[in-house]
Amino acid sequence: MTGIKGFVFDAYGTLFDVFSVTALCEQLFPGKGPALAQLWRVKQLQYTMMRSLMGRHRDFWRLTEDGLVYACKALGLELNADARARLLRAYLHLAAFPDVKPGLETLKGLGLRLAVLSNGEPKMLEAAAQSAGILGLLDRIISVEEVEVFKPSPRVYNLAPARLGVSHAELAFVSSNSWDVAGAASAGLRALWIQRSAAEPPEELGFGAERVVHAITDLAPLLGR
Amino acid sequence: MTGIKGFVFDAYGTLFDVFSVTALCEQLFPGKGPALAQLWRVKQLQYTMMRSLMGRHRDFWRLTEDGLVYACKALGLELNADARARLLRAYLHLAAFPDVKPGLETLKGLGLRLAVLSNGEPKMLEAAAQSAGILGLLDRIISVEEVEVFKPSPRVYNLAPARLGVSHAELAFVSSNSWDVAGAASAGLRALWIQRSAAEPPEELGFGAERVVHAITDLAPLLGR
Repeated sequence: MTGIKGFVFDAYGTLFDVFSVTALCEQLFPGKGPALAQLWRVKQLQYTMMRSLMGRHRDFWRLTEDGLVYACKALGLELNADARARLLRAYLHLAAFPDVKPGLETLKGLGLRLAVLSNGEPKMLEAAAQSAGILGLLDRIISVEEVEVFKPSPRVYNLAPARLGVSHAELAFVSSNSWDVAGAASAGLRALWIQRSAAEPPEELGFGAERVVHAITDLAPLLGR
Repeated sequence: MTGIKGFVFDAYGTLFDVFSVTALCEQLFPGKGPALAQLWRVKQLQYTMMRSLMGRHRDFWRLTEDGLVYACKALGLELNADARARLLRAYLHLAAFPDVKPGLETLKGLGLRLAVLSNGEPKMLEAAAQSAGILGLLDRIISVEEVEVFKPSPRVYNLAPARLGVSHAELAFVSSNSWDVAGAASAGLRALWIQRSAAEPPEELGFGAERVVHAITDLAPLLGR
């Protein structure tokens, strides 16, 4: 891969490990943790796309809450105010995957521009980056809130070249979500899939990854410098 | 409910029972039928929304195939050409739920306009309506292909009043999908949820159903005529 001047990363599942959310779900609702965490994530994501298509934007923090409320109702779990607050707060204090910090440091050392581009609400993203110890490595945290539409709209991906001041072809977008990779590729970015779950096939959306990697530390060697 | 001049129905899951698809999945892939049918449906629906947000429309027939291909890969099932053709064809020969024909006949007898409004591709919808024996009861079959964007975009729901020549407030939209109900309500139609799965809570999308029913035969009594 030549001509790359910057890397743009998806946040949740790509840089930040949402496992701590699952663990708290299990602690609060023993035996139902994985089911709650999974349905919560499904709804959180569905609501982003449904709301964008409806033309009824609502920020990701509030959709995270809406998804949690639905998931608890569907699973017959009583969500009191304390549990609700604790579960939402978990999104502010996520760990980064172990490959993230060393991978970003190497890229930074090569003089590349680094940014996050996420559905997340800006304060959520900043809190998570701070908590994960990677805030200082990022040149920009870019949120869909600037355009009030969610991924995979091209308006979202087009924010990255605009905010970093480099062209689409000079930017590599990295996500663990294959559909997010397809959205970025469709918008003209160079798109890389970080396959964090080995068994998962790529989505059938007509746009694929230029490369597939398994850790953020796999990126620097691709540049052949 | 007063002032209603027509009913507009979602197709798959609302009028047409997709169970025959599940049965064929099980016949072709013993022990994996329900898992395949479920993941197929999830992907079919995800791809409609992702493609619409990407601005890369592709008709529902082709997305149904894309979803099937993904689901088989994810479950490690080998999809040969014969199985692929048989599974897709199942979407052309669906049964209507038992309440559909009597319910539509009663509404038709009251002089109401009746239509289908679906993500489906027009030929798929006509084949399914013909196969289910309800084609003659419908004044219109309206497909998202007219606007090349999927539900829950308001451009889809706005097709119904335009094509039936009645106002938004005179049209009741009926769907078994709570998110589809929310989309119609957000677009200004009167929206009814036909809750075919009793345990399912309504989606947390900010727009709810005016009424909840359990069968198409529950609709005529609501008109108080």
